[in-house]
Amino acid sequence: MANFKGHALPGSFFLLFGLWWSVKYPLRYFNEKGNKKSHRNHSYQRLDVIEGAAKIIFAMIGMLAEQFVPDGPHLYLYSGEERSWVKLMNWQHTTMYLFYGLSGVVDVLTYSPLKLPLGMDRLMLSVAVFVEGFLFYYHVLHRPMLDKHIHSLLLIAVFGGAFGILLEVFLRDNIVLELFRASLAILQGTWFWQIGFVLFPPRGGPAWNEEDHDNIMFVTMCFFWHYAAALLIMIANYMLTYCCIQRCKRDTGEIDIGLGVRKQKSDTSSHVALLNGSDEE
Amino acid sequence: MANFKGHALPGSFFLLFGLWWSVKYPLRYFNEKGNKKSHRNHSYQRLDVIEGAAKIIFAMIGMLAEQFVPDGPHLYLYSGEERSWVKLMNWQHTTMYLFYGLSGVVDVLTYSPLKLPLGMDRLMLSVAVFVEGFLFYYHVLHRPMLDKHIHSLLLIAVFGGAFGILLEVFLRDNIVLELFRASLAILQGTWFWQIGFVLFPPRGGPAWNEEDHDNIMFVTMCFFWHYAAALLIMIANYMLTYCCIQRCKRDTGEIDIGLGVRKQKSDTSSHVALLNGSDEE
Amino acid sequence: MANFKGHALPGSFFLLFGLWWSVKYPLRYFNEKGNKKSHRNHSYQRLDVIEGAAKIIFAMIGMLAEQFVPDGPHLYLYSGEERSWVKLMNWQHTTMYLFYGLSGVVDVLTYSPLKLPLGMDRLMLSVAVFVEGFLFYYHVLHRPMLDKHIHSLLLIAVFGGAFGILLEVFLRDNIVLELFRASLAILQGTWFWQIGFVLFPPRGGPAWNEEDHDNIMFVTMCFFWHYAAALLIMIANYMLTYCCIQRCKRDTGEIDIGLGVRKQKSDTSSHVALLNGSDEE
Amino acid sequence: MANFKGHALPGSFFLLFGLWWSVKYPLRYFNEKGNKKSHRNHSYQRLDVIEGAAKIIFAMIGMLAEQFVPDGPHLYLYSGEERSWVKLMNWQHTTMYLFYGLSGVVDVLTYSPLKLPLGMDRLMLSVAVFVEGFLFYYHVLHRPMLDKHIHSLLLIAVFGGAFGILLEVFLRDNIVLELFRASLAILQGTWFWQIGFVLFPPRGGPAWNEEDHDNIMFVTMCFFWHYAAALLIMIANYMLTYCCIQRCKRDTGEIDIGLGVRKQKSDTSSHVALLNGSDEE
Repeated sequence: MANFKGHALPGSFFLLFGLWWSVKYPLRYFNEKGNKKSHRNHSYQRLDVIEGAAKIIFAMIGMLAEQFVPDGPHLYLYSGEERSWVKLMNWQHTTMYLFYGLSGVVDVLTYSPLKLPLGMDRLMLSVAVFVEGFLFYYHVLHRPMLDKHIHSLLLIAVFGGAFGILLEVFLRDNIVLELFRASLAILQGTWFWQIGFVLFPPRGGPAWNEEDHDNIMFVTMCFFWHYAAALLIMIANYMLTYCCIQRCKRDTGEIDIGLGVRKQKSDTSSHVALLNGSDEE
Repeated sequence: MANFKGHALPGSFFLLFGLWWSVKYPLRYFNEKGNKKSHRNHSYQRLDVIEGAAKIIFAMIGMLAEQFVPDGPHLYLYSGEERSWVKLMNWQHTTMYLFYGLSGVVDVLTYSPLKLPLGMDRLMLSVAVFVEGFLFYYHVLHRPMLDKHIHSLLLIAVFGGAFGILLEVFLRDNIVLELFRASLAILQGTWFWQIGFVLFPPRGGPAWNEEDHDNIMFVTMCFFWHYAAALLIMIANYMLTYCCIQRCKRDTGEIDIGLGVRKQKSDTSSHVALLNGSDEE
Repeated sequence: MANFKGHALPGSFFLLFGLWWSVKYPLRYFNEKGNKKSHRNHSYQRLDVIEGAAKIIFAMIGMLAEQFVPDGPHLYLYSGEERSWVKLMNWQHTTMYLFYGLSGVVDVLTYSPLKLPLGMDRLMLSVAVFVEGFLFYYHVLHRPMLDKHIHSLLLIAVFGGAFGILLEVFLRDNIVLELFRASLAILQGTWFWQIGFVLFPPRGGPAWNEEDHDNIMFVTMCFFWHYAAALLIMIANYMLTYCCIQRCKRDTGEIDIGLGVRKQKSDTSSHVALLNGSDEE
Repeated sequence: MANFKGHALPGSFFLLFGLWWSVKYPLRYFNEKGNKKSHRNHSYQRLDVIEGAAKIIFAMIGMLAEQFVPDGPHLYLYSGEERSWVKLMNWQHTTMYLFYGLSGVVDVLTYSPLKLPLGMDRLMLSVAVFVEGFLFYYHVLHRPMLDKHIHSLLLIAVFGGAFGILLEVFLRDNIVLELFRASLAILQGTWFWQIGFVLFPPRGGPAWNEEDHDNIMFVTMCFFWHYAAALLIMIANYMLTYCCIQRCKRDTGEIDIGLGVRKQKSDTSSHVALLNGSDEE
């Protein structure tokens, strides 16, 4: 949907995932540091399955919204009368959601009895982000300058994220890469909202001059301010998590705080994931 | 051959290899998981040699077809009379096949008494794919827009595959990379068929308007639908393999199922391949 | 500030850091080699905190200078009267300094009780350099040819440095990467000065013809001469450090020379940083 | 020198090094495999020093030739009378040779008492190749189409080689990477000769039409034929080396064949080079 809502919807999805990751990974990190020798419980695996399910649901919502908004294609792809394609923009957006949905399916299958190889889930997420990137790349070739530029900035976040997630295939459970992924997800989320505000000013605000070079310069800079804000949110969430964990420890004396811990063996499995993907506990 | 068959032939080769790999690697993966402590038998090495031979044969077929079709160059490169090159398109395709043939030769030599260093076979395959990519890149510079675009989408699969195989030089026997390679081979295969259908509609179907921007947009999206289909085929083959293995185990009680197993030592050799290519069992 | 001082200021910052690193890392390297079995003292951690503080101070100076020079924006971003953005160049430079400041903050936090994961500091520095690169890239698109070219050469040093630092996230304390970073910092420093001299010849020297192709060719070559000079400075500093260490050892018989040593355990931690980012001493 | 000799000279240098490497590395590889437990002798280190010296000498010859050919700049850079730069092409070529010379200096220093960190020599070689690549890239921007294209093909070999050597910084003594480097050096060597023949047909042969698209297509294909030839040379040299080693063993019963062997510890040091560049035997 080339309107405000069509940008706010994916923006909210990315923002939700980014914020959730910015809390989840520090939490796991602190638990691991505190309880090196205790057993790895299955809470985090369950969380991964829930995340996968959430991805599937979000992707379904996105696909249905793109297809069945009043001016959507309603699943028609080719109009025989007019001999032309129907609403290809909506179909392209549907395709982007589809790959995130597939990534969710692989997340869920990873912990099914099938036991997909570890790393497959990260690879599929990376593929989904790459597909988003390539579709956007070809998508905006013939648009006004500001429209093109504001989407091409998005590509920095998209391809940066895709490469980071690709590294996670081989360096699984690397906290630095996970936090990097979270920060880029927040960036994508807020930037989708920004695109919506710039290209479709809500409630009749003044339209932006799409050919003014100063607007281009401002938008470039604004993109990196969004990232600076995303980094500050990350640091704040990290600190909050740290304080919570400290308080819990003080109150209870080093007990397991619900989400549990992973035993040191997980480190070895990360090692093995790097060296030989065909190995799995 | 710039016609339908010239795209269907390599498409079928890639499809065959992709489908074969999508069964072979899960099979080896399940065997490895089940029989960690048993010995590594040589079935997989024999399979690699057979694959190498198949590559050589396919490459020969491709080269002969490009040279000796009725409107081919019949091994003439330069026409002295007309002072011009003869059928350079066919010669370029011949060159692409040549490198896949060389890759097959290196596959076979790897298990000969010469004992080429492990990783050499992957490097040569990666080089063959890179060469295909570079030749296509320069190949389509001066064509109609749709022709150019449909081939440049192919480059995503080609260079993605080339980088993945390059990683396999250092992370040999990594199941995630191997399945990624299989999925991109299937994608290349089906996409070659698609290119054939779009550029040379068979049996007098309507020609595509090569300058219509909507056609470009549809083709972009269609490429990623092919990949989604390739991924679903991969998942289906993975599940089928899993079920077969489970049934075999139930029937026979954990016996070796013919293709055999690899002992844990193979993990170490994968490790070593990463750290020191000069080492080989 | 699009003037001589606006290039000399960041140039001096980069030069200072580059020269300091070209002494610091050889020093640590020699100490490590000499005293493998002694304990890792905390001098180097203290140095890292001081470096972080220096980054913050430099970034503050840079930001204040960009905002409050006579023709600066004085923190005004949008002029309501003229309905236009105010001095976006200065704001973009401010943004670059901001990210280096953030990198300094993360450096300091790494050794605070919060214990940010190791590698986070390198990642933030890499992000700061990438942001500088992207801003410069979009920054110079509509300038005279020489201006554009002289800045695009800078991008080689910037992106080269950013990738090198990114590798340091996973290969921490790798002396080769650290010296590479130092050499590129020196290069950036001297090249900023060179840009200042070329684009704003001081004291009424002759202006350069910005469209002369020969000037472009000379500037390209000159850039690599700067790098050759940077490499010679690196080698000279390395040799000086070596001689100092040798003299100290001769004088005192293998004693700790103040900055101290790191025990072999640090090697293991570097190992661990590669294999599992979630682990930290 | 923009003439035939100016391309034949560097072509011969690259060819000499490529051929030498295609014999040296298989030789070391077979020796290592045969004598795992014997001591690492210093023959190979001495060879590295000699290689470094050869690089310095070749670079000196190249620089002197570029400067003092009859139509060279004779060390004049700026002509005060004409207010213009003197022979910038020759100066750019001099700069390329300079960096290969610096790489030779670092090779020699690596085995001096200074003990530069291992990997520094590979990094400098990689930098020299990158510098060659960047200089060529900017060098050919304003030339006829064929001239531009034939040099841009060279860039594939140059940047491919530069990345391969960069990997060797972290995966030292990896036989696959070393053979890849040798093959690209041969390719560069033969391609420089080819460029000379195409752009400056010797002894009054017919000049090539520099704007004919068919010539472009042929040249692209020809480049990859050169690589196929380089690969066949590599395989032939590998086989010859293998046969020599086998004959020596049969004659003498497994004795050390002069160039000697490396003990298994070298594997560990390669490992260490990956994980911690600051460590060296």
